[in-house]
Amino acid sequence: MLDTFDDRLDPTFAPVDRAALIARLRTILPAGGLITEAEGLRPYESDGFSGYRVLPAVVAMPTQTVQVQAILRACSEMGVPVVARGAGTGLSGGALPYPGCVLLSLGKFNRILSIDADSRSAVVQPGVRNLAISDAVAPLGLFYAPDPSSQLACSIGGNVAENAGGVHCLKYGLTVHNILKVEMVTLAGDLVTLGGGCLDTPGFDLLALITGSEGLLGVITEITVRLTPLPSFTQVMLVAFDDVRKAGAAVADIIAAGVIPAGLEMMDGPALRAAEQFAHAGYPTDAEAILLCELDGAEADVGEELARVADLCRAAGATEVRLARDEAERKTFWAGRKGAFPAMGRLAPDYYCIDGTIPRHQLPHVLSEISRLSEVHGLLVANVFHAGDGNLHPLILYDANAPGDLERAEAMGGAILELCVSVGGSITGEHGVGREKINQMCVQFTPDEVEAFAAIKAAFDPQGLLNPGKTIPTLARCAEYGAMHVHRGELPHPELPRF
Amino acid sequence: MLDTFDDRLDPTFAPVDRAALIARLRTILPAGGLITEAEGLRPYESDGFSGYRVLPAVVAMPTQTVQVQAILRACSEMGVPVVARGAGTGLSGGALPYPGCVLLSLGKFNRILSIDADSRSAVVQPGVRNLAISDAVAPLGLFYAPDPSSQLACSIGGNVAENAGGVHCLKYGLTVHNILKVEMVTLAGDLVTLGGGCLDTPGFDLLALITGSEGLLGVITEITVRLTPLPSFTQVMLVAFDDVRKAGAAVADIIAAGVIPAGLEMMDGPALRAAEQFAHAGYPTDAEAILLCELDGAEADVGEELARVADLCRAAGATEVRLARDEAERKTFWAGRKGAFPAMGRLAPDYYCIDGTIPRHQLPHVLSEISRLSEVHGLLVANVFHAGDGNLHPLILYDANAPGDLERAEAMGGAILELCVSVGGSITGEHGVGREKINQMCVQFTPDEVEAFAAIKAAFDPQGLLNPGKTIPTLARCAEYGAMHVHRGELPHPELPRF
Repeated sequence: MLDTFDDRLDPTFAPVDRAALIARLRTILPAGGLITEAEGLRPYESDGFSGYRVLPAVVAMPTQTVQVQAILRACSEMGVPVVARGAGTGLSGGALPYPGCVLLSLGKFNRILSIDADSRSAVVQPGVRNLAISDAVAPLGLFYAPDPSSQLACSIGGNVAENAGGVHCLKYGLTVHNILKVEMVTLAGDLVTLGGGCLDTPGFDLLALITGSEGLLGVITEITVRLTPLPSFTQVMLVAFDDVRKAGAAVADIIAAGVIPAGLEMMDGPALRAAEQFAHAGYPTDAEAILLCELDGAEADVGEELARVADLCRAAGATEVRLARDEAERKTFWAGRKGAFPAMGRLAPDYYCIDGTIPRHQLPHVLSEISRLSEVHGLLVANVFHAGDGNLHPLILYDANAPGDLERAEAMGGAILELCVSVGGSITGEHGVGREKINQMCVQFTPDEVEAFAAIKAAFDPQGLLNPGKTIPTLARCAEYGAMHVHRGELPHPELPRF
Repeated sequence: MLDTFDDRLDPTFAPVDRAALIARLRTILPAGGLITEAEGLRPYESDGFSGYRVLPAVVAMPTQTVQVQAILRACSEMGVPVVARGAGTGLSGGALPYPGCVLLSLGKFNRILSIDADSRSAVVQPGVRNLAISDAVAPLGLFYAPDPSSQLACSIGGNVAENAGGVHCLKYGLTVHNILKVEMVTLAGDLVTLGGGCLDTPGFDLLALITGSEGLLGVITEITVRLTPLPSFTQVMLVAFDDVRKAGAAVADIIAAGVIPAGLEMMDGPALRAAEQFAHAGYPTDAEAILLCELDGAEADVGEELARVADLCRAAGATEVRLARDEAERKTFWAGRKGAFPAMGRLAPDYYCIDGTIPRHQLPHVLSEISRLSEVHGLLVANVFHAGDGNLHPLILYDANAPGDLERAEAMGGAILELCVSVGGSITGEHGVGREKINQMCVQFTPDEVEAFAAIKAAFDPQGLLNPGKTIPTLARCAEYGAMHVHRGELPHPELPRF
């Protein structure tokens, strides 16, 4: 473990009698519902944040809500930490096991329970894959809008836990904007319903609170998702620039003009060249940045808006503006973008995908600073952005087998996140905090704000057993990390106590 | 007090030494910042939910955030309840004082601090009037979208506390969708920042949690609102029906067709006739229901969508479809709708405005049931709806000077809200729970859910001093009320404990 993931600063729990735990779980789950052998536990030792691996005590695979209730009651009574896991595609270590924990897999909660075309909603279990929802409702002319890159594999429960985004969230919103109701089991084993799809929620907005809560407050067992009509027409424009700053300015101009693209993505030179070699998407490899701007809606409207976008991009200095000739080329343009991450394998054995958000007008400054950090840390960076949202994904290239490389990549990643905070941005766009960014939470928030988070956590989980050591740092961790150098780009309020 | 507002079931606090409280507050506020005389306290004894009146111990009118922090610290140390108040236009008693409380008026926090056209946001103090924001940014081609009927008078802090809606929230969302950041003072006097306008919020979504929290979690001192470009073209269509059920079906058809009107309002016969006599809006007084359907956007799109809406309405049995001839007539059409509430004065001395939400397809059934309840309780009802949202505003007509009339109106209001819950709806659309609907919370939610709310409340306010007796019922109150007869239209989960 690296010192940025200092285990000394995690909560600790009394040791568990593993045999007694297994015996108790066997009373709840049928044979086949429990994995206890090291061989079987191995696949659960990490999620997509794969630099860190911890074996759980057992993996529990319930198929019914009453089993989830009983498992959580058992863990509460025995004082055993619980980490819930969907498809395990998360990139911030949200499903990384805690030593001695029950890894609660929702993989068998994989049914679409009902689809209601009239109210444009579907009731699904948390283990249903994101794309499986859109596939199931496509014959009704509908889709589920949030589309993380992992949508083929990732499951909707994890999407809710992480408030997942995707290329289309600029227009269609994050997960929180696309779910209506959640059924959740608390650590005490109570089943509660949050939200309900009505205009406003009486009482506190617990649906929004649970969305993005990263497994710290309860275990989701059922989700009612909002469905969106498939657009009648979709077109994408590829725009090339000889300077990333010009591309950044074009993004700001497009949004300022009131255009709401379905997606507005940017790749810098290293990213687009790697993607082109990998996916043969037809990108101009001499460009220093490209934008992919997708618009959807009525065909006439899309045409008008594309013309406006083209004018704005030319005014910002675009060297090339090219519409996809047909649906096949539209898909090819996107295949390059989606292949940008795997394409990094051509540049370096490993990459570390950073996820931060900045105000769009800070893009030129932040890009310069990332270049500087790249030199300081001696590691190459390729930049892929959900540009319309100001959501950066710098990909730090390294070699996990080269001693010190991972440590340097992580130090540089932390520095980039703190750079995002210093310009008024945020340490996450869509990947969550998890284990990865727990120290940067101390930079993003004041001690009073961290304490407010901790109070919420304690309200749902007074024992601190749900996904310990993630997302909400202890104040001891923040003190150790020497945090509060910057806070939202401002000096701390002088009247407030600091530590 | 009526027995539905049983004070025995409220929290109680040790008696306060009023002189000591005043002396302490005088060390915080300058002369003129504190009202202590009965004469001066009188205007604060209720909000727009005016059937209930309680005098506060004092009214504090801070002008600076540090004063708010000091007042809350003082109240926490002395164990004094605090009720925050903006313009006092709320309809659910959210700003009704608690006996012996400090009434904390944010009326002097009335400055627009900054406007940023590029990022389409403005930073405002909580006492700024809703419409004052739109007025200030109109020269920039922008507006603040949520538009409660009271927008001329109501203040933005109260809008956040109640998650206010309005005619335009069908397209533009509720308050929670139109704010980016909130600065809030906790009962302990800590100043915390919630949200920040980035794509996703690291940690829990406290901005959504605080929005609509009705003054139970903290006192808001600054709000960053999202601004929306003014639409280039707006048109409204008036559609008449000879049966409210046909109008209800037309609403469902319009939404199902994927049209997103900027506003879609319905009035039944009694409401539209009273409004016509009051405002001379040109409504067809022989109709049994009218719809007002407003569309905005590019002129060509609006024209196309209006044609679709007209076709759908004719197919649903409309007797008349009429476009506003010009901007003046568009405003006249809306003046009638906005005048529907005051127009009730022509039908009865008093009216009680109910606020519930139902699934749109339940509209015909719920209208029949409301008619039946009207007969059972012997009180006339006029119905005004934010129809597109399924948000009902039945106006129960009564005479406060007739013995027993208010009690009957409240009993009938409670029955209507429970009817909403029984068809899968909700006890509030946009007015909040406050004091008014605290018993119906026991019908809407299970005991486990009420306990989750209470745990959140305790996390922010362990002493229970912020706006006591509102929004979140005690389990004792629910037991006394004999709640849990219906829950979201379903029988309670049999495996869950009940009381």
